[in-house]
Amino acid sequence: MTAMRTIGALIFPDFELLDLYGPLEMFGLLPEELTIRVVAESDAPVASKPGVRTVPDETTAPDAAYDILLVPGGMGTRREVENAPLLDWIAATASRSAVTASVCTGSALLARAGVLDGRRATTNKKAWDWATSQGPKVLWQPQARWVEDGNLFTSSGISAGTDMSLALIARLLGEERADAVALHAEYERVRDPGHDPFAAHYGL
Amino acid sequence: MTAMRTIGALIFPDFELLDLYGPLEMFGLLPEELTIRVVAESDAPVASKPGVRTVPDETTAPDAAYDILLVPGGMGTRREVENAPLLDWIAATASRSAVTASVCTGSALLARAGVLDGRRATTNKKAWDWATSQGPKVLWQPQARWVEDGNLFTSSGISAGTDMSLALIARLLGEERADAVALHAEYERVRDPGHDPFAAHYGL
Repeated sequence: MTAMRTIGALIFPDFELLDLYGPLEMFGLLPEELTIRVVAESDAPVASKPGVRTVPDETTAPDAAYDILLVPGGMGTRREVENAPLLDWIAATASRSAVTASVCTGSALLARAGVLDGRRATTNKKAWDWATSQGPKVLWQPQARWVEDGNLFTSSGISAGTDMSLALIARLLGEERADAVALHAEYERVRDPGHDPFAAHYGL
Repeated sequence: MTAMRTIGALIFPDFELLDLYGPLEMFGLLPEELTIRVVAESDAPVASKPGVRTVPDETTAPDAAYDILLVPGGMGTRREVENAPLLDWIAATASRSAVTASVCTGSALLARAGVLDGRRATTNKKAWDWATSQGPKVLWQPQARWVEDGNLFTSSGISAGTDMSLALIARLLGEERADAVALHAEYERVRDPGHDPFAAHYGL
């Protein structure tokens, strides 16, 4: 029997929908192995960039710890990189979580929280200059669908988080389970973390 | 100046997350052209299959009409195919909407509502037998990422809805806009609606 693992998925105003829901779709197809908890600073519904609202399951507790801490990106990160209490929570929670993962400009929040210092990471390619400027000590990787550095997983923009989440499932539960999830979702996985036509498009 | 178009995205308990949020991500990247309204039978938050809750923007009004009516699938469709008031709302709203689109087993709801009778459509490949049995008069297409038949768009399972939504954007606003949205989302579009490795996998 596999132990149940818990994913803490942080949301904040103006998060990017697919940054969150691509990974949660894949994690959600493994209900016997993975439990999803959506986390926010308050228990009020949180509006994504286009207005669609998600209800948090719990608030940012001072003693939070997850098997996977997932941090999406989106326009809201421009504001949250100045949100010191949230950055403190991210730093503390990441230190207690087995794996920390970000999608898109979620890596800017991890960077500002100090979680990525001295580590290899990637981020959104369109927002590359802004996102990477949030972490001068990060070893930013421009040509990457996603980057794995020990217990840190960071993905490129928006849809890249879905491929990263399948790589995370593969790490935790094996490639066969990740393939089964992708098949169920009729999703053709990008298996090569270095596959990144978008880096070239933006001249990175 | 392009006219603002409104998407009515229906949700119900145990809807599939990516069926809804893949398309809403893509539509949401065009805020000057598209407005999203999430619709449910009541105004209470609606739990998806893995529990994550979405807040509706409006309830199923008797005079509803949208530029795009979007119906996701998921395990909840097994119950909703017996929900006569909801099926009546779908039939009436589809008849007043410019385009009706479904993802995955959302087509089972359209089929039971009579919207697909005599029309070409597709659905989830894993749930093919159940979904197609909901519409004996539908011209079901087994080998299809998605199917366009006039003002009806139906996609295969879960992630196929994302490609269908980009085809819908291309129809409404042109291929260049659809490509720009996919680029922004770092998403490699499936452009061929007949591309379907999953049909063969399930022997369809």
